[in-house]
Amino acid sequence: MNASQVITILTDFGLADPFVGVMKGIIHGIHPDARVIDLTHEIEPQDIRAGAFNLLVSYRYFPPGTVHLGVVDPGVGTERRALAIVTNRYLLVGPDNGVLTWAAMDDEILYSVSITRDEYLLADRSTTFHGRDIFAPAAAHLSLGVAPDKLGERIDDPVVLDFPEPNRRDESSIVGRTIYIDRFGNLITNVRLSEDEKSRVAEITMKDVSISHISTTYHDADPGKPMALVGSTGFVEIACSEASAADILRAKRDDVVIFHFED
Amino acid sequence: MNASQVITILTDFGLADPFVGVMKGIIHGIHPDARVIDLTHEIEPQDIRAGAFNLLVSYRYFPPGTVHLGVVDPGVGTERRALAIVTNRYLLVGPDNGVLTWAAMDDEILYSVSITRDEYLLADRSTTFHGRDIFAPAAAHLSLGVAPDKLGERIDDPVVLDFPEPNRRDESSIVGRTIYIDRFGNLITNVRLSEDEKSRVAEITMKDVSISHISTTYHDADPGKPMALVGSTGFVEIACSEASAADILRAKRDDVVIFHFED
Amino acid sequence: MNASQVITILTDFGLADPFVGVMKGIIHGIHPDARVIDLTHEIEPQDIRAGAFNLLVSYRYFPPGTVHLGVVDPGVGTERRALAIVTNRYLLVGPDNGVLTWAAMDDEILYSVSITRDEYLLADRSTTFHGRDIFAPAAAHLSLGVAPDKLGERIDDPVVLDFPEPNRRDESSIVGRTIYIDRFGNLITNVRLSEDEKSRVAEITMKDVSISHISTTYHDADPGKPMALVGSTGFVEIACSEASAADILRAKRDDVVIFHFED
Repeated sequence: MNASQVITILTDFGLADPFVGVMKGIIHGIHPDARVIDLTHEIEPQDIRAGAFNLLVSYRYFPPGTVHLGVVDPGVGTERRALAIVTNRYLLVGPDNGVLTWAAMDDEILYSVSITRDEYLLADRSTTFHGRDIFAPAAAHLSLGVAPDKLGERIDDPVVLDFPEPNRRDESSIVGRTIYIDRFGNLITNVRLSEDEKSRVAEITMKDVSISHISTTYHDADPGKPMALVGSTGFVEIACSEASAADILRAKRDDVVIFHFED
Repeated sequence: MNASQVITILTDFGLADPFVGVMKGIIHGIHPDARVIDLTHEIEPQDIRAGAFNLLVSYRYFPPGTVHLGVVDPGVGTERRALAIVTNRYLLVGPDNGVLTWAAMDDEILYSVSITRDEYLLADRSTTFHGRDIFAPAAAHLSLGVAPDKLGERIDDPVVLDFPEPNRRDESSIVGRTIYIDRFGNLITNVRLSEDEKSRVAEITMKDVSISHISTTYHDADPGKPMALVGSTGFVEIACSEASAADILRAKRDDVVIFHFED
Repeated sequence: MNASQVITILTDFGLADPFVGVMKGIIHGIHPDARVIDLTHEIEPQDIRAGAFNLLVSYRYFPPGTVHLGVVDPGVGTERRALAIVTNRYLLVGPDNGVLTWAAMDDEILYSVSITRDEYLLADRSTTFHGRDIFAPAAAHLSLGVAPDKLGERIDDPVVLDFPEPNRRDESSIVGRTIYIDRFGNLITNVRLSEDEKSRVAEITMKDVSISHISTTYHDADPGKPMALVGSTGFVEIACSEASAADILRAKRDDVVIFHFED
């Protein structure tokens, strides 16, 4: 797999401080023609699962060879390793805490490397900002085509973050939950339905709300009335036309959503 | 008109989710050398008028041939068409709901195309994220120089969003209103003044405030005192030096602002 | 010093309005291959010191020849000059109000130019948006390699913003203060310690909190307990593992932090 010019960055750094800009400065110093694309920097501080989810639903829309840089790093400065994962079509770089797991496994992991070689990192390294000192330079070198094996030794025990699969799943029902809430207040669940399951949905329940079927667009229900549809991520989401389902249902992450099927 | 490398993006997607990053991934997969520039992604969800206004005051500062992509799309997934508008100097792409109208008409519309041809769109299309599935790929192809007519049939009935002209305008007065409030709390009105009108302003009234003349800079009034000046958009704005006029006047969009002229 | 392709932008314009996008449009119209990197646009409106601080801690991570554009400009439209500063390795552009001072002096100022030549600026200039009309085009020309002296006359009296050095500093103690609070609530002080001083720290006091030593990572104290460490900026910061020190200490900018040393 050849590296493309594209590097994406996902962090919990926000945009109020110049952290992300500084990472881009490092990248352009090493790879002047890199195309750096922000995925998001508004992950809640240290929310590894939200980072993993956003990488999972985004990574595949980028050119093969893209380097995806994901830095949600509560363990910065500790012994946690720095990781480069080579997958079927992409390169992923970030702390070894699971933030890369879901995207990497979805695309199929070929091998993982523990990033350690000084010549690919900043000479002066802080204990608090490895996005700048380790991950950005490593990603920039990888996007230039440096072989991942040059960055360190292969490891076979990267930290694996389990995907929050539905608690129960059988012929008659699926007990899922919300795993992400987007800007519009749409409640994204951990449930993907087969075509067969989709046609057999009899009822979807969440809190005291009952939804009768899977809709096609946000406009298939009256404004403000909760509905379910297959979102752009492929997961079922609970939404309200012209309103925030999160507000209307007073929902938060990890709320239960039950899918009942016809026989 | 030749396409430039530049594509701008304006949406109501915010920056907390990776929607905009994913659109850029699609664009770079099709046009690796595109220069993608964010106009803003903080349009209030589904506020077509705010999107149209921001495109209007921004579009002309980009190189001729720039593709302006404006996605404020409450009708996503319905029958509303996807639009490419060719203007005198630019290409505009977005939903056919009026969000492109003000910029397009300001630059002069040459013709409009309903985007329908599969080969210029993503193969798998959702019903909820046409920014990714339709608008980003169409814009990328246009920025590569693909003729707009290749994307679909010409149409002569794009949705037109009427610009909120002043309610009354004559020799003695103009009854305008605020149409946008910026980050600094400056109240941008729908009033543009001729040089003659500017010289004849006798009083500007808004709520219980009276302003005696058009100032030249934010510093021509005492801090906190409301003033009027011709803003960088060309429209008259009500502002307060070192303070938010929106806060001080408790103003919101569509508040009335009256300009009285000397004879 | 040769210009690089990189231009950074720091402003107080926020991202809700298209101000920054428009500046990038101007830049790409003049220098199509520029790489424009956002440092931050969330400086509090007109907070020159916060702008100066963020430039200081960021500028050096960019390729030599980078043009750093810093626009926090309460005096826009007045007689304040527009400035280009040539330093040892960089070019800085912005209003002559001190926002560029700390970065420029840190890198060593070679000379300063008052930007006045029409041919490098927009033809139609507003009195309220010099980021678009003066600073963006000047920066774009400089990044193309235009000699700074072409933009105007050299001046030897640019406005100097004094860096807020510690109020007292001797063998037994340093009386410093917080000068910046980042997204994580870390309290960045104006104190840099020598290796000797670091080893002799006996106590650090802030408000009613006592900290016994300089930690190495955010994980060297129990969650929520205030600690001190040398941050990625090189300045000592007061932080809390897994929490916001600003919240826990109810701290704000300019709060006193005292370092006591052993003999």
